[in-house]
Amino acid sequence: MQMQGFFFPRTATGQSSLIPSPPWFYSGDLLTVEYRTDPARVAELLPAPLELAPEDPGAVALIWADWQSCSSSREELLDPVRSQYKEAFVVVRCSYQGTTYSRCVYIWVDKDFAIARGMHQGYPKKLGQMWQTRPMAFPHAAPVIGAGGVFGATLAAGDRRLAEAVVTLREESETNGFVNAHKMAHHRVYPAMDGNGDAFAELIESGASAFAAGPAWSGDADLRLFESPTEELARLEVHEVIGGYFRQVGVEWNGGRSLEVLNTDE
Amino acid sequence: MQMQGFFFPRTATGQSSLIPSPPWFYSGDLLTVEYRTDPARVAELLPAPLELAPEDPGAVALIWADWQSCSSSREELLDPVRSQYKEAFVVVRCSYQGTTYSRCVYIWVDKDFAIARGMHQGYPKKLGQMWQTRPMAFPHAAPVIGAGGVFGATLAAGDRRLAEAVVTLREESETNGFVNAHKMAHHRVYPAMDGNGDAFAELIESGASAFAAGPAWSGDADLRLFESPTEELARLEVHEVIGGYFRQVGVEWNGGRSLEVLNTDE
Amino acid sequence: MQMQGFFFPRTATGQSSLIPSPPWFYSGDLLTVEYRTDPARVAELLPAPLELAPEDPGAVALIWADWQSCSSSREELLDPVRSQYKEAFVVVRCSYQGTTYSRCVYIWVDKDFAIARGMHQGYPKKLGQMWQTRPMAFPHAAPVIGAGGVFGATLAAGDRRLAEAVVTLREESETNGFVNAHKMAHHRVYPAMDGNGDAFAELIESGASAFAAGPAWSGDADLRLFESPTEELARLEVHEVIGGYFRQVGVEWNGGRSLEVLNTDE
Amino acid sequence: MQMQGFFFPRTATGQSSLIPSPPWFYSGDLLTVEYRTDPARVAELLPAPLELAPEDPGAVALIWADWQSCSSSREELLDPVRSQYKEAFVVVRCSYQGTTYSRCVYIWVDKDFAIARGMHQGYPKKLGQMWQTRPMAFPHAAPVIGAGGVFGATLAAGDRRLAEAVVTLREESETNGFVNAHKMAHHRVYPAMDGNGDAFAELIESGASAFAAGPAWSGDADLRLFESPTEELARLEVHEVIGGYFRQVGVEWNGGRSLEVLNTDE
Repeated sequence: MQMQGFFFPRTATGQSSLIPSPPWFYSGDLLTVEYRTDPARVAELLPAPLELAPEDPGAVALIWADWQSCSSSREELLDPVRSQYKEAFVVVRCSYQGTTYSRCVYIWVDKDFAIARGMHQGYPKKLGQMWQTRPMAFPHAAPVIGAGGVFGATLAAGDRRLAEAVVTLREESETNGFVNAHKMAHHRVYPAMDGNGDAFAELIESGASAFAAGPAWSGDADLRLFESPTEELARLEVHEVIGGYFRQVGVEWNGGRSLEVLNTDE
Repeated sequence: MQMQGFFFPRTATGQSSLIPSPPWFYSGDLLTVEYRTDPARVAELLPAPLELAPEDPGAVALIWADWQSCSSSREELLDPVRSQYKEAFVVVRCSYQGTTYSRCVYIWVDKDFAIARGMHQGYPKKLGQMWQTRPMAFPHAAPVIGAGGVFGATLAAGDRRLAEAVVTLREESETNGFVNAHKMAHHRVYPAMDGNGDAFAELIESGASAFAAGPAWSGDADLRLFESPTEELARLEVHEVIGGYFRQVGVEWNGGRSLEVLNTDE
Repeated sequence: MQMQGFFFPRTATGQSSLIPSPPWFYSGDLLTVEYRTDPARVAELLPAPLELAPEDPGAVALIWADWQSCSSSREELLDPVRSQYKEAFVVVRCSYQGTTYSRCVYIWVDKDFAIARGMHQGYPKKLGQMWQTRPMAFPHAAPVIGAGGVFGATLAAGDRRLAEAVVTLREESETNGFVNAHKMAHHRVYPAMDGNGDAFAELIESGASAFAAGPAWSGDADLRLFESPTEELARLEVHEVIGGYFRQVGVEWNGGRSLEVLNTDE
Repeated sequence: MQMQGFFFPRTATGQSSLIPSPPWFYSGDLLTVEYRTDPARVAELLPAPLELAPEDPGAVALIWADWQSCSSSREELLDPVRSQYKEAFVVVRCSYQGTTYSRCVYIWVDKDFAIARGMHQGYPKKLGQMWQTRPMAFPHAAPVIGAGGVFGATLAAGDRRLAEAVVTLREESETNGFVNAHKMAHHRVYPAMDGNGDAFAELIESGASAFAAGPAWSGDADLRLFESPTEELARLEVHEVIGGYFRQVGVEWNGGRSLEVLNTDE
């Protein structure tokens, strides 16, 4: 029997696959806090052959995203339990063969299809609870997207709060920050069945195949990170806040390419 | 000791109260399907002294709402787990002493503070899972608020899907429907500790103390209701769809008034 | 139309009521930590005419419970999303007209039917996430109910951890603690629609109408309480741990009685 | 930098890994319904080189499991949000090189660590909501594990109920069924970054490295499967119920072995 389905479970029809084939489409609101930590703490998260980025190597972005997403069929949009999800993720930069990449080192989402897309894209996704203030059409219970607009965001996992941020917008900005501005360099790993090393490991790059964005707003940011026995986010200590950002975006993602299949010999 | 707190648990400071004192503020997106059912099914949900509305007595509105809300302090907006919630609710109309009221007969929400506000306001809230398509800033994975925009919505409780709707917007509309357009007439009940009838029962009216709204859009709607052993929503059978609506609103709610304290003698 | 249903929403059949009429039945595992706090902190939670208990007035019990529950029909047992829930609750003692009562001052549950039962019984329930180690049939991933068995428990609400405990069983015990050993004296309150005080307030007593229990085990306990902007649990500081307990129980609850309807004049 | 961690995210310490290294330990309650479907529907789920089992090829087991689990450190048992989870899974049998294997074709769990363990073991896990009646210490709200004990179970995903079962125990049984009684033959797949086929695919076998079980009870079973646009469980139609089973188990799992690395050329 020939199986169908982009990912598991594969069946004769492919209907059950946890995720459909790319391209995948996203509309979302991004709330970002950029800060500097000890570059040595970033280096700890860069397996060879990745190295620290040459400039501002301790820069970190903690990004909350409130997403609606779908496949080419757009059918998920009419059953939005299958299209909406929230996430928070931590991005650093690194250098590979002379090129600077962004790299997601931690990420939490709240849906299984998002976990599976992360498996494919090399985002190391766990489940978490993420909340970020939404700009709404009316200000009765919402901030403005503009000078003075104040946005909060929180991240929890395992019934522990891991991070909370408050961003106060000040002015329009040329950029939405610089840490998450490169193609991503991610590892994809599959541990071996016998427990000795990996059966498969690969360094890949990927980025948006299409991207649109509204005006970016920048401002002040306050960020607090909390300890957890199963997380190391707080190890990326906040030494200096660079800034906070808010931006609304539309994204298409349609695959990436393998940079290296890694040696999995033990 | 003098206890503080609008609702339970009451303490010396009032800090623990599940909900703060009104006024309460809301910014939200409403997706509405109006339809006609057998007026006898509406009448079943109207305790005396309420009666069927004189005109179009079988009209029903099933409304999904995606809310951000806060108290006067607005502090909940920076800890949005405390301000965002989703709901779906069923509204009919009724007549009391010659006046037509709206009345929420079923409602599901996904936060405890929303349940407590409903206890106060006479909304018979249960927990459920509600999803409605969101208009986003970019169309990559979102409909437009405008002609041709298609919005889906689903409601589940107890791990069963109870309702699903698809609304296709066609044109701007004078109204967002007519069923939920009156003040609400609700019962507030508190069963007696000995199990014999109610210790307290009251008929109240309430409505928004301030209201703002963007343009309403109307269009076609498809609505399906499903059976559940613990729900009677499907008993309000869809005989004729009146229309679908989408509107963004801002609301302030600041109390209501007692119409009658009801006799609780058994 | 005569409405049916123990609690809201009331309908012609009563089928939709969030909770059925008592009696209610429970089978559960209780993990308890008893400790002493400053009696003044307990007194803060006792509205007149309640007073501190005459002996050991600063004693507190923090109890986790892993419940399966049902009505007389037992139908919920076959659709266990409707019968299983977890809770954590804080009990102190108080004195009313010379009698010592237990009193639940804070409680978190994870189902709506449990919230509604709490409304009726005067338990000030919020939603939370509770976890407690389970004794399982095999020890591969479980403690024994016996000397050396170690049980953990955690409580979170609003994406913040509020409490965590570890109990190490040492020996069989005559009791499962003494703080939660009396009838409960609870307030039931319903704020007035106009926001001025309560429309209804009552002091009630209730307790189990039937009760069975296995052997109680006692032992050492470690308890940590954490701050939250919406909770005051941590204000009941742990001055001295009295002990930890584990016990399996069966309970029937079938109403209580009003001690006083309280004056709600402002 | 040398990265540590059995699975992602990998860090210098390994502390963040979503799952620790095997062995993994489990204590659980299993509720099983075995039935026969059209063998052609089973064949649809068996990619080459797997074939239908030679005897009773249409046999299916739908199993609910209520688990507590941990690593060798057993630390998860004291923070039980990290150790307890529920699952429902569908097992068929197949033949590979003359040997009969069990094979999990669909599975739903409710924790992220369980998804990650499934990725490793070749279980095609999605998130779902699973509930099964628990045997408790007291019968006030629980069935007995014995003749006449009635257990219910439900499965939902995407806010839709997918399956519900009722099992009435009749007698002790030699076995807990026969469908899930072999080593598992599972595929592990990793789609290629460019979207063309798989970067890695492997057929593996694994089973418990240690196993203990209490008495198995068998009885009558009723099973209903429901349609969903994202699931094909209902395609495994119930032609004939074989029986229902309840058993409590303890399990250790400590890896498996690769049967074949599969050709991933397109």
